[in-house]
Amino acid sequence: MSLLEINSFAAGSWIAPGTGAREIENAVSGEVMARAGNDGLDAQAMLDHAVNIGGPNLRAMTFHDRARMLKALAAHLNEKKQALYDLSFATGATQADHMIDIDGGIGTMFVFASKGRREMPDAHVYLDGDVEQLSRSGSFLGQHICTPMRGAAVHINAFNFPVWGMLEKLAPTLLAGMPAIVKPATATCYVTELAVRIMLESGLLPEGALQLVTGGLGDMLDRLTCQDMVSFTGSADTALKLRSAPHILKNSIRFVAEQDSLNASILGPDATPGTPEFDLFVKEVHREMTAKAGQKCTAIRRIMAPQAQVDAVIEALSARLSKTVIGDPRAETTRMGALVSNSQKRDVLEKAQILGAEAERVFGDPENFDVQGADADKGAFLPPMLFHCADPDGAQRVHDTEAFGPVSTIMGYRDLDHAVALVNRGGGSLVASVITHDPEVAREVALGAGAFHGRIYFNNRDSMKESTGHGSPLPHMVHGGPGRAGGGEELGGVRGVMHYMQRTAIQGSPDILTAIGRQWVPGAAEKDGGAHPFTRNFHELEIGETLHTPLRQVTLEDIETFAHFTGDTFYAHMDEDAAQRNPFFPGRVAHGYLLISFAAGMFVEPNEGPVLANTGLDNLRFMKPVQSGDSIKVRLTVKKKTPRNEEYGEVRWHVTLTNQDGELVAEYDLLTMNAFQS
Amino acid sequence: MSLLEINSFAAGSWIAPGTGAREIENAVSGEVMARAGNDGLDAQAMLDHAVNIGGPNLRAMTFHDRARMLKALAAHLNEKKQALYDLSFATGATQADHMIDIDGGIGTMFVFASKGRREMPDAHVYLDGDVEQLSRSGSFLGQHICTPMRGAAVHINAFNFPVWGMLEKLAPTLLAGMPAIVKPATATCYVTELAVRIMLESGLLPEGALQLVTGGLGDMLDRLTCQDMVSFTGSADTALKLRSAPHILKNSIRFVAEQDSLNASILGPDATPGTPEFDLFVKEVHREMTAKAGQKCTAIRRIMAPQAQVDAVIEALSARLSKTVIGDPRAETTRMGALVSNSQKRDVLEKAQILGAEAERVFGDPENFDVQGADADKGAFLPPMLFHCADPDGAQRVHDTEAFGPVSTIMGYRDLDHAVALVNRGGGSLVASVITHDPEVAREVALGAGAFHGRIYFNNRDSMKESTGHGSPLPHMVHGGPGRAGGGEELGGVRGVMHYMQRTAIQGSPDILTAIGRQWVPGAAEKDGGAHPFTRNFHELEIGETLHTPLRQVTLEDIETFAHFTGDTFYAHMDEDAAQRNPFFPGRVAHGYLLISFAAGMFVEPNEGPVLANTGLDNLRFMKPVQSGDSIKVRLTVKKKTPRNEEYGEVRWHVTLTNQDGELVAEYDLLTMNAFQS
Repeated sequence: MSLLEINSFAAGSWIAPGTGAREIENAVSGEVMARAGNDGLDAQAMLDHAVNIGGPNLRAMTFHDRARMLKALAAHLNEKKQALYDLSFATGATQADHMIDIDGGIGTMFVFASKGRREMPDAHVYLDGDVEQLSRSGSFLGQHICTPMRGAAVHINAFNFPVWGMLEKLAPTLLAGMPAIVKPATATCYVTELAVRIMLESGLLPEGALQLVTGGLGDMLDRLTCQDMVSFTGSADTALKLRSAPHILKNSIRFVAEQDSLNASILGPDATPGTPEFDLFVKEVHREMTAKAGQKCTAIRRIMAPQAQVDAVIEALSARLSKTVIGDPRAETTRMGALVSNSQKRDVLEKAQILGAEAERVFGDPENFDVQGADADKGAFLPPMLFHCADPDGAQRVHDTEAFGPVSTIMGYRDLDHAVALVNRGGGSLVASVITHDPEVAREVALGAGAFHGRIYFNNRDSMKESTGHGSPLPHMVHGGPGRAGGGEELGGVRGVMHYMQRTAIQGSPDILTAIGRQWVPGAAEKDGGAHPFTRNFHELEIGETLHTPLRQVTLEDIETFAHFTGDTFYAHMDEDAAQRNPFFPGRVAHGYLLISFAAGMFVEPNEGPVLANTGLDNLRFMKPVQSGDSIKVRLTVKKKTPRNEEYGEVRWHVTLTNQDGELVAEYDLLTMNAFQS
Repeated sequence: MSLLEINSFAAGSWIAPGTGAREIENAVSGEVMARAGNDGLDAQAMLDHAVNIGGPNLRAMTFHDRARMLKALAAHLNEKKQALYDLSFATGATQADHMIDIDGGIGTMFVFASKGRREMPDAHVYLDGDVEQLSRSGSFLGQHICTPMRGAAVHINAFNFPVWGMLEKLAPTLLAGMPAIVKPATATCYVTELAVRIMLESGLLPEGALQLVTGGLGDMLDRLTCQDMVSFTGSADTALKLRSAPHILKNSIRFVAEQDSLNASILGPDATPGTPEFDLFVKEVHREMTAKAGQKCTAIRRIMAPQAQVDAVIEALSARLSKTVIGDPRAETTRMGALVSNSQKRDVLEKAQILGAEAERVFGDPENFDVQGADADKGAFLPPMLFHCADPDGAQRVHDTEAFGPVSTIMGYRDLDHAVALVNRGGGSLVASVITHDPEVAREVALGAGAFHGRIYFNNRDSMKESTGHGSPLPHMVHGGPGRAGGGEELGGVRGVMHYMQRTAIQGSPDILTAIGRQWVPGAAEKDGGAHPFTRNFHELEIGETLHTPLRQVTLEDIETFAHFTGDTFYAHMDEDAAQRNPFFPGRVAHGYLLISFAAGMFVEPNEGPVLANTGLDNLRFMKPVQSGDSIKVRLTVKKKTPRNEEYGEVRWHVTLTNQDGELVAEYDLLTMNAFQS
């Protein structure tokens, strides 16, 4: 087989590897299969391409436009994924591993596409949080907005997930409206290159949105500005080198790192042998040790069991590990493939030796294990290795040595406080898990170990059928961790998009805030649409368009009628003396639901028209009681419009009810679905 | 006058300055007035004191407990503030400056106290965002929580705001539940020391919550762990030195910096002479140049006006500046006091000289100006100095030189794009302002310059009466900025509290999430309180306590009655053919408000009892239409409890309406106020 030539994609052109390109070996056969690297790309031209072409192209789109693009890209990758599977076997990964990397990456993109449509506006500015009341009469207000950073996001990825690793950073970056320059680890860059090629060939990405560097970045990092950012996944050593660069520090360049992690899993004190939790624990630990041959940043490196259960766990886990078929990743019977390279294998063996000084190897012999369908001497194969550390308090290296392969250390704990203390000795981790059916055990670990972890995963008999696994970062949940784990944060839904945006506090008048946020703010100008707003279609309605109703009196008869009709004869509405004893009411008052029902009766235009349905209501607050004889009137204002499909969209109306004295009685957001056509 | 001896407060003891203490001069008289510094505090003992005593003490309190403590501390400081005023004149600050520093600091603490009560739970875990649906049937869910970091927050503050600078960091730190070690700048540390003394003597702070270092930190920063953090305000040079420390970088220690900033203010193209905005602009610029003698990190360093208005602005601003009385800060007629020290004065003059190479000084002569009531040769006095830069595109130093005194440079712009480009040449700033009455001008600047700024302040005739000023960071709004401004973020309400907490993604079953968050999650166990929940007082009610009602049928007569009673004769309820044409409905359907009114009638216990009022409703969504003949039933569950005063608290109920087939019809949160006593 001829060598694959792995290209870069720089400033709009594919660039073949240079003369100094590195050779890449097939993890299974050990044979050289590809060449990758560059003889010096023009880093400034790449950054300029991103800043001058990619950024403006992406910023011209709304969040919804970009979300639709992500959905189409994910669907396109999904169609072409067989080619990615086929190529990925060479990394040592099995089909089950591909599901994590390739399907997991595509799924992540789908989730961001969906969140972009559901949780972000069809606009260019994201509003972060509520309007802040900075003044008594409301003429001066605050609002936080997020806008895309104006530079390039440089993504430096690890070798273990050539597709997911790229897409989990790329999806939020593009959704934010920021162009990306992706630099995969060389060992598996051929898979990333193919994924990039598939995306670029789809024609779905605007020019400049995505560039690829195989090989070194040259002096790119020294050319970044405060509008660029670096998101790194890999070893702590490399992270430290990059983040220590004087240029990065001097310019306060945003640097996100996800690096080493000594993730732990705790068997709960309640999860004794014979419980569903005990079996679940053994199963989860086994999976985390063997999936991707243990080359997962979230893999379980430290196994913590009540002292009394350590032997039982070793026994059950060893039994399971001994059935793990190691070999050719293409074979369906194979449970664990090869490590990515023989150099990675050597590194794992070195780390295992370090662990061996503090812990005894109780399962797995790297000198003696079966490999099926491949040459054990040439491919980067290793057996799963389980160590037992008898003195975890005295030990240090088991808490700080990450053997990035199928290696884990079990240690006993005395009580839950001890377990929490041991877990925290990881010095900051991506994830810890607890297998327990006792919610108070869960709470104790969450309070005691939360500050040391980016994620804590709980599982038990109730959730095990649907749980996603200790080792799976989900696009909905943040991924990252303090301290040794790098101090960074990725993913987490819209939070992950914010990593590529700048938050800005905006202060000004209601009209100014309305213009910037494209969302009507109380106090801003009201508009007259010339007709009842229920007769105007989604596109005709303008932000700020307002209807004022006349006053309607609320009588004692109304209150009585409503009470008996609905059955709501609560004393505050029916019993004058009891109502007067209540600290909130001067006497019998109208039902809150009577008021909002009357309000609807006052503002609704009854005839068939573009308003399709009342879909909900938010933030209703009753401010002042209404007694019989009082009157109410309604102000109904178009606050925000969000298209939902090709036919209709959601209109958010700001509604206030005031009484005959102009006092605010109630305030809420009303949601309707409105047709695009009248 | 004898010298003040400025102490440190370390591990519970006041420590007098050491032999190598530095002398501090009175800014007005130039005379030595105090000594501060230490001969080496035991940094490890201080950190241990914070971690082992302060942290546990604070974490034993709920957010509400800590918020009440902040309120009491702020009230106590407010009572004692005259002593702080009296001492602060020596820093060169006027009474108006004290209002910014001392009253501003106390006000910030009050706002955090209020936000802690209103926006955070009376609990130990803060829930960040909504529950994430990670599984089809809901047996496995996600939730982000925040818990206090387990170390110490080391605050390194600037000289300009010895009180506000401390309190704006301290309030969110304590509210988060993290102990603080405060290190003020030596030049004004005597004011900070007094403020610390007042707080400690109040007895309101738990042991270990607050320590003070006057003088150097010794090797404290080299002893931090991933659970500590550093929040720095000061020069870019010092920030760079601190953040480059290998120990900080190697351990991913959270480091927040707020440093240099070349803040700009733009006169809008619409704000021609004669408009209220033109006068407002001159007034704001004048205030920002002279308040605190220009020693504000948010001061306006660059003034941008339409080319045609530059001369008019220089003229109007000069007229105003010429009336600025400089002199003894104690005198009521004084508008601008002294800089903090003669060394600071020299630094400003050096920077002014740098600016002078690119801009012409058009107002203010440091060699020739009046000082009233003080000795101009001994005190650190300077006049306001206005420079005009005729070629802002060709210039560089006017965009990167922060003369930290009453110095600003005006430059003309051609059009709004040019103004935005010039503003962004600050390379990342804390704040920019725009004085405009045109909302589209505001939007254009927000979109174009947002990514370079932590805050953008808009002002005009509508907001000027209540606006808070370009230079005032507010506790509600984030303060910080990218790039040159340090890349950090402080304040911003609850966001500012999060800077001292770790966010952790929690995954697990509904019961686990409920136990950790102390907020009921759908799918978690329901509890039976043994009586109707409306008969049980606030304290008796348990999270998860649930009422199920029987089914109630909805008839066509009900729909007709409700329509005519309320006036809501919307076609979907009244016109079978029109309703059938609607994409959401199978035919005539019941009003949403009829359903929630009926629901109340079904779950309410009518007799006088501990439920005082229905105060509101959140997140109501109608999922499935109800037609005549359908029936509905209600499930009402206690979701969350929040005490509001000494007599009652808010109960948040989760409510679902289901139909006769068990399908979800509607879902919402109901809010009631419930008495502590039955």
